[in-house]
Amino acid sequence: MTGHVPRHAVVIASGGLDSSAVAYLLAAQGASLSLLSFDYGQRHRKELQSAALIAEELGASHDVVDLRSLGHILGGSALTDTTIPVPDGHYSDDSMRITVVPNRNAIMLSVAAGVAVASKADTVAFGAHAGDHAIYPDCRPQFLEHIARTIHVGNEGFLAEDFQVLAPFLNATKADIVTAAEELGVPFKQTWSCYKGGDLHCGTCGTCWERREAFQVAGVSDPTPYADKAAGERR
Amino acid sequence: MTGHVPRHAVVIASGGLDSSAVAYLLAAQGASLSLLSFDYGQRHRKELQSAALIAEELGASHDVVDLRSLGHILGGSALTDTTIPVPDGHYSDDSMRITVVPNRNAIMLSVAAGVAVASKADTVAFGAHAGDHAIYPDCRPQFLEHIARTIHVGNEGFLAEDFQVLAPFLNATKADIVTAAEELGVPFKQTWSCYKGGDLHCGTCGTCWERREAFQVAGVSDPTPYADKAAGERR
Repeated sequence: MTGHVPRHAVVIASGGLDSSAVAYLLAAQGASLSLLSFDYGQRHRKELQSAALIAEELGASHDVVDLRSLGHILGGSALTDTTIPVPDGHYSDDSMRITVVPNRNAIMLSVAAGVAVASKADTVAFGAHAGDHAIYPDCRPQFLEHIARTIHVGNEGFLAEDFQVLAPFLNATKADIVTAAEELGVPFKQTWSCYKGGDLHCGTCGTCWERREAFQVAGVSDPTPYADKAAGERR
Repeated sequence: MTGHVPRHAVVIASGGLDSSAVAYLLAAQGASLSLLSFDYGQRHRKELQSAALIAEELGASHDVVDLRSLGHILGGSALTDTTIPVPDGHYSDDSMRITVVPNRNAIMLSVAAGVAVASKADTVAFGAHAGDHAIYPDCRPQFLEHIARTIHVGNEGFLAEDFQVLAPFLNATKADIVTAAEELGVPFKQTWSCYKGGDLHCGTCGTCWERREAFQVAGVSDPTPYADKAAGERR
């Protein structure tokens, strides 16, 4: 992890494994936390409840930015448009492109930076990791460098002097995150990954595959109740 | 104006002089336009109606992104927090700092870039001008360069190849914009600048001063009905 230990971090919290691990990591370092979630009309809205639970566990504040009107304007992603099916099967470039919400991380990080300015936080943090690099250009190290510089330039004179954008797991695998999260005491059962939005994790969509695989590779017991319990064995 | 003539531009439209002039300029160049406004709980919500009228005049689409929940979270600006008075008098660093909405242009441009990706637009345009540089760091040329590069890097493989962020009046004065707007046929009476949100332009807040002065310097007749008609003469 590069950067300094945060005093006060605005953490983009999706309620998933990655951002929850980021929140627990920074809390363990003694940072004061403001969790920020985004409602963009995603069918997997259950993740917003998970983010609220994680914030409660950590004694952090939690705000939800309502971007549903933008979800309507953007359309065209399987994550927001219920006429487009969420693809089943393993992550791959072809199936995952339909789960791209255009410019999502830039939007969320820009909003988080605004909140950081308003609350005098010195850090904005998010859960990008190496597994996202192939398909999501806004999860790559190069993007992080550019957005951080843009935030600095665009808020000159208003930002904390040592302001930073942190992605502590930027070069980690999802399995690395599970390993770290277990050590940090992340309540796995309260995190939500599935893109489909059912009552249980479906077990078959790309993010469910990724989640199951990460636990397997990390050798950590996966407490997630999946709707399709056998999917992991059928691969 | 640098950059290429747009085929399809997403224009950030506040309903004010500057962004209306941008829309009229690009329309005159033959671009197809999508106007995008932001409702962040500004007390001068009348500008949203002005933006809709401008879109109608140009036969452009118009979407409003509802960011009111963010306005609540951010707080602390005279533009959104009704407990903070909008300062009267001429633009100056001290009085204008209270009208800064943190990271506003980065947020709006990031959203507009997402809309551009979704709609395959080749351009995002906004109305920054030289008069804003002193107090608003996110209106400066350096910021424009950085945000454009960030959008390119963050949307690699998803953006139009010749995608550009345009601020045609970046180095123009407000008076230059009035001159250009008159040539372009911008319906001045339908534009809205005042930050106070009354039925008429107040004539005394910073943006009203700036508007009046721009017409005077440009030598263009100002058709705006101001609540305080005499303010211009009392300076």
